[in-house]
Amino acid sequence: MDRYMIISADGHAGVPEGGYRQYLESQYHHEYTEYLKGYLPGTGAHRKSLENLGGAVFGKEVTEETEAQKEVEAGGRVGAWDPDRRIKEVEADGIVAEVLFPDGSLKNNAPFFASSKPGSYPYELQAAGARAYNRWLADFCSKQPGRLAGLAVITIHDVEAAVSEIQWAKQAGLMGVIMPASVGDSGDLPFYNHPRYEPIWATCAETALPLHTHVGSAVPDYGGLPGARLIFPTESSWFSHRPLWFLLWSGVFERYPKLKMVFTEQGSTWVPDILPRMDSMYHGLFRDIQETLPLSPTEYWERQCFVSAMFRDRTERDARHGIGVNKLVWGSDYPHVEGSWPHSVKTLHNALEGVPEEETRAMLGENALGVYGFDRKLLEPIASRVGPKIDEI
Amino acid sequence: MDRYMIISADGHAGVPEGGYRQYLESQYHHEYTEYLKGYLPGTGAHRKSLENLGGAVFGKEVTEETEAQKEVEAGGRVGAWDPDRRIKEVEADGIVAEVLFPDGSLKNNAPFFASSKPGSYPYELQAAGARAYNRWLADFCSKQPGRLAGLAVITIHDVEAAVSEIQWAKQAGLMGVIMPASVGDSGDLPFYNHPRYEPIWATCAETALPLHTHVGSAVPDYGGLPGARLIFPTESSWFSHRPLWFLLWSGVFERYPKLKMVFTEQGSTWVPDILPRMDSMYHGLFRDIQETLPLSPTEYWERQCFVSAMFRDRTERDARHGIGVNKLVWGSDYPHVEGSWPHSVKTLHNALEGVPEEETRAMLGENALGVYGFDRKLLEPIASRVGPKIDEI
Repeated sequence: MDRYMIISADGHAGVPEGGYRQYLESQYHHEYTEYLKGYLPGTGAHRKSLENLGGAVFGKEVTEETEAQKEVEAGGRVGAWDPDRRIKEVEADGIVAEVLFPDGSLKNNAPFFASSKPGSYPYELQAAGARAYNRWLADFCSKQPGRLAGLAVITIHDVEAAVSEIQWAKQAGLMGVIMPASVGDSGDLPFYNHPRYEPIWATCAETALPLHTHVGSAVPDYGGLPGARLIFPTESSWFSHRPLWFLLWSGVFERYPKLKMVFTEQGSTWVPDILPRMDSMYHGLFRDIQETLPLSPTEYWERQCFVSAMFRDRTERDARHGIGVNKLVWGSDYPHVEGSWPHSVKTLHNALEGVPEEETRAMLGENALGVYGFDRKLLEPIASRVGPKIDEI
Repeated sequence: MDRYMIISADGHAGVPEGGYRQYLESQYHHEYTEYLKGYLPGTGAHRKSLENLGGAVFGKEVTEETEAQKEVEAGGRVGAWDPDRRIKEVEADGIVAEVLFPDGSLKNNAPFFASSKPGSYPYELQAAGARAYNRWLADFCSKQPGRLAGLAVITIHDVEAAVSEIQWAKQAGLMGVIMPASVGDSGDLPFYNHPRYEPIWATCAETALPLHTHVGSAVPDYGGLPGARLIFPTESSWFSHRPLWFLLWSGVFERYPKLKMVFTEQGSTWVPDILPRMDSMYHGLFRDIQETLPLSPTEYWERQCFVSAMFRDRTERDARHGIGVNKLVWGSDYPHVEGSWPHSVKTLHNALEGVPEEETRAMLGENALGVYGFDRKLLEPIASRVGPKIDEI
């Protein structure tokens, strides 16, 4: 094929205000109404939480008003909840299929901050919000069969409920699971090396649904101190991939060799910093761990983990062999304003020009195809229609 | 000169049980007696804290008994408190001068866990312990003039007291300041971007005493969960250099261009991961910060920061240009068991063979000479006697 098959392993979906109501169990409708009021400018209630949880990062650029305006003015962004519009826009951007995370914009987050910090809203409501979002998402993805791999949001305070939700997600055709990255430091949930989470790892492995963390809210509350706006994005990547070593060192990857884990929108140049350091502990001062972990950190990584690159410049391209060309997927981050849509081909050309075709194919499509089990027979004909030609990248 | 002048920018000093008593204000002598009881095997009281704070990392290798035994059997390690023995042993290891951190071993930590987590022992006692340690250290360093750059331990709950201690340290001939890396996440002290710390930054700049963080206790309490032994060293580096972006983004380096900061025994390969990411925020999505910070993160780093490499293998050597050859210092970690003593020359040869002489001189001696203001006229003749020959590295 003279074109690339590009799969974006980082897209976002969600329906605006009120759109989750029909997917939400009726006993929570009153709370949903109250929750929605928080979105309205001037009422304040959740506005502050929103800002603490991510809005503040983008400062004035992503206030609710301007974001909403941008969505309209750009004639786009509505692909967050309109499946036909979405497919049209991502195809025009050279992409054949997508992996879908929550939080298309501040206005269509999963209800009750379901995908934010555990406990940032009452646990029971966060869990109900996750179920509603997942039902909506399964519906949304079913409108474009085989093209949209939706990831189920799980909350992790009630492990038994999380397990049920993962099993439901599998039945409903969702293609992976996203869990909150932040536990342990604050709140009342222990770190991910605690045995209480074991059934979650077991169920992801059994159902073959890859587990994800996505950059976002897994940071402490900086309390609006000087520089917090910049400290948030400096640290949020680390907090998002921190579960890697809690799972790895506590033997989760050893016990569940079929568990796959993907680290999304958190950069990838941390991989060649952290893995060699972990390997050196494994082979050096802490080599007695080899009695319980027969593989080195790099070997578990190689067997079970993936990381999504953004390829916004040449940094990740230059580091790709240290990260692993077969470990990298890519995402356009549609419809986020910081994403590469609608200029993904140009962005990828700037970053990847000169990379061998085989490697480009792996990082932009083949690896994601394998991780999520997309159907090649379905996607290749589409790629031959919408994918960029080899010399365009 | 046909030999290298090697300065170890990472050594440890401390006097064993009871040795701080004469340096401790008498009103704390009773608490000191109680505190010391905790060290005795079997009593338990502080033993557990000790293990949480670092002992657990090394597992059975560094129980108090075996550590004490090793000190005796190896005929070394007593250089932690014997200045003549110390100089003899480090000279035999090719080194002409050292920078001294606290905590020579579990048995001679600064009293009352003064250099551990803020609040891990009552604040007032930690501060008294820091003062006692600093007095002892000033005495210790004065026995080998110009050879030992002692770093004052400061506690940071009482900022005014910290400022007085830094001023005292300058008068007493100490050559830098070490502060706890861990604030904000737990305990009652805010993150380092809080304006309350401003007088500390101002005083370090005025006195020209470089500020340090050292790898160690700046980690959360993992509660003994599976894998915690390995999670601790995986994370402790990050927690130790985390103050970098709190100070940088909140404008501390901008307001105090003469403030120098050194990050010790926490690896150095994180530098070419983190700085480019921070630069890209500075030049990209968050470029409005340029109104208050005229320099980019890399430019502040270049002007004011240093990092100590360990050169245990070739990883840091290969990454040196990304880190900055003029930003790297090195330490033997004497008398710690995980350090390179008494095989530093061989260790450095294995890591640095083939690196141009000029670069080797910078990383092993010249950079540290500049940071700490060692006297070249004093050290060069010693180097021409004890330093390794050029072809030995």
